[in-house]
Amino acid sequence: MNVKYVCRITAYTVFMTALFMLAPAGIAFYDGETRNALVYLFVVGIMSVLGSVLFLVSRNFKPILYAQEGIAATSISWIVMSVFGALPFVLTGEIPRYIDALFEIVSGFSTTGASILSDVEALSRCNLFWRSFSHWMGGMGVLVFMLAVLPQTKKGEGSGIFLMKAESTGPSVSKFTPHLRQTAKILYILYIAFTIACAVFLLLGELPLFDSLCLALGTAGTGGFGILNDSAGSYSPYIQGVLAVFMMLFGINFSMYYLILLGQLKAVFKNEELRTYLGIILASVVLITVNIYSMYGSVRESMHHAFFQVSSIITTTGFSSVDFEQWPAFSKGILFILMFIGGCAGSTGGGMKVSRVLMLGKNIVRTISQTLHPRRMHLVKMDGHSVKESVANSVDAYLAVYCVIILFSFAIVSLDDYSLGTNFSAVVACFNNIGPGFELVGATGNYGHYSDLSKFVFIIDMLLGRLEIFPLLALFSPDLWSRKR
Amino acid sequence: MNVKYVCRITAYTVFMTALFMLAPAGIAFYDGETRNALVYLFVVGIMSVLGSVLFLVSRNFKPILYAQEGIAATSISWIVMSVFGALPFVLTGEIPRYIDALFEIVSGFSTTGASILSDVEALSRCNLFWRSFSHWMGGMGVLVFMLAVLPQTKKGEGSGIFLMKAESTGPSVSKFTPHLRQTAKILYILYIAFTIACAVFLLLGELPLFDSLCLALGTAGTGGFGILNDSAGSYSPYIQGVLAVFMMLFGINFSMYYLILLGQLKAVFKNEELRTYLGIILASVVLITVNIYSMYGSVRESMHHAFFQVSSIITTTGFSSVDFEQWPAFSKGILFILMFIGGCAGSTGGGMKVSRVLMLGKNIVRTISQTLHPRRMHLVKMDGHSVKESVANSVDAYLAVYCVIILFSFAIVSLDDYSLGTNFSAVVACFNNIGPGFELVGATGNYGHYSDLSKFVFIIDMLLGRLEIFPLLALFSPDLWSRKR
Repeated sequence: MNVKYVCRITAYTVFMTALFMLAPAGIAFYDGETRNALVYLFVVGIMSVLGSVLFLVSRNFKPILYAQEGIAATSISWIVMSVFGALPFVLTGEIPRYIDALFEIVSGFSTTGASILSDVEALSRCNLFWRSFSHWMGGMGVLVFMLAVLPQTKKGEGSGIFLMKAESTGPSVSKFTPHLRQTAKILYILYIAFTIACAVFLLLGELPLFDSLCLALGTAGTGGFGILNDSAGSYSPYIQGVLAVFMMLFGINFSMYYLILLGQLKAVFKNEELRTYLGIILASVVLITVNIYSMYGSVRESMHHAFFQVSSIITTTGFSSVDFEQWPAFSKGILFILMFIGGCAGSTGGGMKVSRVLMLGKNIVRTISQTLHPRRMHLVKMDGHSVKESVANSVDAYLAVYCVIILFSFAIVSLDDYSLGTNFSAVVACFNNIGPGFELVGATGNYGHYSDLSKFVFIIDMLLGRLEIFPLLALFSPDLWSRKR
Repeated sequence: MNVKYVCRITAYTVFMTALFMLAPAGIAFYDGETRNALVYLFVVGIMSVLGSVLFLVSRNFKPILYAQEGIAATSISWIVMSVFGALPFVLTGEIPRYIDALFEIVSGFSTTGASILSDVEALSRCNLFWRSFSHWMGGMGVLVFMLAVLPQTKKGEGSGIFLMKAESTGPSVSKFTPHLRQTAKILYILYIAFTIACAVFLLLGELPLFDSLCLALGTAGTGGFGILNDSAGSYSPYIQGVLAVFMMLFGINFSMYYLILLGQLKAVFKNEELRTYLGIILASVVLITVNIYSMYGSVRESMHHAFFQVSSIITTTGFSSVDFEQWPAFSKGILFILMFIGGCAGSTGGGMKVSRVLMLGKNIVRTISQTLHPRRMHLVKMDGHSVKESVANSVDAYLAVYCVIILFSFAIVSLDDYSLGTNFSAVVACFNNIGPGFELVGATGNYGHYSDLSKFVFIIDMLLGRLEIFPLLALFSPDLWSRKR
């Protein structure tokens, strides 16, 4: 493995994270909380030193990067980011225990939105902002940001694809342009534009600037950290509506927006993943609306909350407009299923991703055909093109490791003697980067009551979920560290 | 599709089931319950008429059978068996509602052991025996029995493999001998011998003959219907021990026993599935023993109950020696995971099967290697031989449809407003043919309180689980019914 290149990339990520951390420092200064500001600057300082060391270590690196290096660099970067990103919470004294702070920031970066806090309103604004900002950074990815802003040598250009593959969501990366840097730039421009649009719509609903910003960042990353204890429960129906619509938009593959900009509307309408995504949302909203109608007494209000919750859960954001723990089991059952599905590939959403679910469905149909006609050739088609056998199978393999992780995590977390519903939904909610689960970790609950061991399991699960398992898992493969190729 | 051949096979299955039904009729006569005896004989009569009609319809059938016919014949046979097998319960008036009776008999044939009855002790002995006997019939399979006893033409010989494939458990059929009939015969001889051995050991524990027989039949099929309300809770430690050991034995691939008879002990010791199976049992027993030690206060008693429950759940039998609902969440978590794993391929146990789980694990390791070295060739090995790519992938596809069925069933069952733990574990317990789940459907609970819709879902799930999904699912594929090949 090209260790120096991995160090160089990690150095860049550390610098980027330090750069982003100047924002909460600025807010603390603005609020007159000098101590908090100095804490953030202190951490920025440490990170700069670490980054510089890594930078020096990796001088005269060879800019040749294969899958191995892409995977190692991405996983290590995410771990380093999290380890340092947690420090401000501890040093400001607002989340005194390090494991809690780590949980909180990993929940942030991984866009989960699960919290160990029972009273978020007690946090100072700089910490609240850092929480929401971490969603935004993690949503599109710090390495993708790095690809977008750093100048690239011609040789380094092609190899960035392995970083992009490791950090982006979904079974395959869609490059809009032959140049990776260009693709990364377009992604971030669209991302920033949509985030600003979301913030503006929130401002129009008479939400203060700070609140609008935090909510927009949390929505864009499909994270779900709120700044109020009741998540989005006390906002006006207009604000909730804006959030619901934008959550849904951020759950869509960003290449769709690029296609729209290019005027290729036909390709957008024909996209199977998008159609399935919207179809699932529509069906879920209708079913839940009917099911909860008796609780709210009006179609409009039922549909409003059904849409908000469906949009929040399928995109794995995790905001809540009501305590859906009180809903009937059928509605909760639907939300539970949406937790597994998740957003579209190439979006900021978590979960399995709609395209994987779609491919799994097609694989099932194919297997039935194969059972009936063992000697026939059977191809899986997506968007009119036949899918490579290796991609179709990799999706199945993804499900396998996905299930194994859920069951293993569940077993360990069960050491905390809560109900099956609490423990199982907690694992599912963390691993799929949603945030709230059911029962004790439901819309009004939090993860603070879990033991440190369980919190550690959740931290691993959140990272595994965000990086789509294999990059992080590969860290434990001796194969990764071998010099052979 | 060769409809006539399918009719002919169904005719045979109907005759076989009618033949087996003479046993409870005999018991009813012996007990002086003439009315019950006549009920059973009446149903035997109806089935004989139906069988004869199907037999006549299928005269001059061509004995050519492909996957299509094997699948259709197996699925249809199982449905017909269940539809008629439920009648005695209704006609004796002991389970008056047909849907309940159907649930009970499908639970029997599929070796699930889930019951809608809160008081099984109220049943007459003929019905108790029919319940336990249905486990035994379903365990090894009625079609396999048919293959063993019916004379086969040389042409028909080869085609029986598709019946065997559709009805046997595990990803592939192990033929001991080149002749299928011989294989089926050996399977049933071993099956009968082990069942008798189990009954004898129970008799030695001073259990009455009838009780010993019923328990042995339920153990052999890894079914789990008991004849007492507390399952196996009130039996002596010796009886519980016999049951635990035999459950474990019936969860092992029967080809292992054949290998032992042939003296090929080396092949048995080297068998990866067997080693994994025993390893999982050992690990689970140790973990649970430690976890429940404080409840029982002695290592011996803790280990006794841990072993009983682990053996019962991993083989998907479902007997209980204690109310494990009272155990700490960690122990229940382990049992929950064992529910998914199930017994070995080629055993009477349900679940995913250990070999599939093993293959899934190997596929995961392979996928990690593939991620790291996209251009290398990666093979999966089992017992020292490399596994065909199509088999390795089919296991992944199996998992996909497995998960989809669980989630879909869970959504429908959620319409009955019980907790996530109850509903989810009920689906998992039925689909994996275990019987008891957790909370309301735990060791002391039953399925009687569910709505008819949910019961219907459970019935489908139990059949899907027993036939390993694809044969039954294929019934809904228009492809199955097409004349083309």
